[in-house]
Amino acid sequence: MSFDPATLVYDANGLIPCIAQQEGTGEVLMMAWMNADAVARTLATGRVTYWSRSRQSFWVKGESSGHVQKLVELRVDCDRDCLLAVVDQTGPACHTNRRSCFYTALRGGEEVEIMTPVSEG
Amino acid sequence: MSFDPATLVYDANGLIPCIAQQEGTGEVLMMAWMNADAVARTLATGRVTYWSRSRQSFWVKGESSGHVQKLVELRVDCDRDCLLAVVDQTGPACHTNRRSCFYTALRGGEEVEIMTPVSEG
Repeated sequence: MSFDPATLVYDANGLIPCIAQQEGTGEVLMMAWMNADAVARTLATGRVTYWSRSRQSFWVKGESSGHVQKLVELRVDCDRDCLLAVVDQTGPACHTNRRSCFYTALRGGEEVEIMTPVSEG
Repeated sequence: MSFDPATLVYDANGLIPCIAQQEGTGEVLMMAWMNADAVARTLATGRVTYWSRSRQSFWVKGESSGHVQKLVELRVDCDRDCLLAVVDQTGPACHTNRRSCFYTALRGGEEVEIMTPVSEG
């Protein structure tokens, strides 16, 4: 079946969540949002492109930082209201310079930092 | 720092998205929503508990199907507006009886089913 971004289920703001996962390692890197145009741009360019809710603009991941996400494969869930982008991430995915945004674990009722920022020399 | 579910960032409906990932394999199984009480219940019981938006009730994953998600570790992202539950999933996570909800891949502009339902004999 030929894919049309309009067939996805978007929220009241026209957005759909997209999980980015590193190919090979399976590491979950981040979650951000796309609108239908961002989905189409991601597929057309092979560069993962989100919709920035704070800036209300397209956000080509890594465009300013160089920490690009090359799309390996985009997947759709059963309800068509969530996306999984399998990617090849250059450097850290998180704006804190950590590989993943999910660097805080809850252990024994405490918040524990399980990942340190990547040092760039 | 001691963890309080009230410190997470919820949307206008009081919900936060939670990604479930299988421990060990790294497979992304599903994404669903939690409210603050569901987060607290998940941590207290070790059984991943979502908030069902369609039923407007707690949804203890696997309670009726037996396909439970045992919590291994709950993680919080940098913006505190998304959760990652590392889990041990019994059987399929998807209501279609597939291991993961992300069984549709976009390849060459087409939708391709990359995962078949688990047969239970």
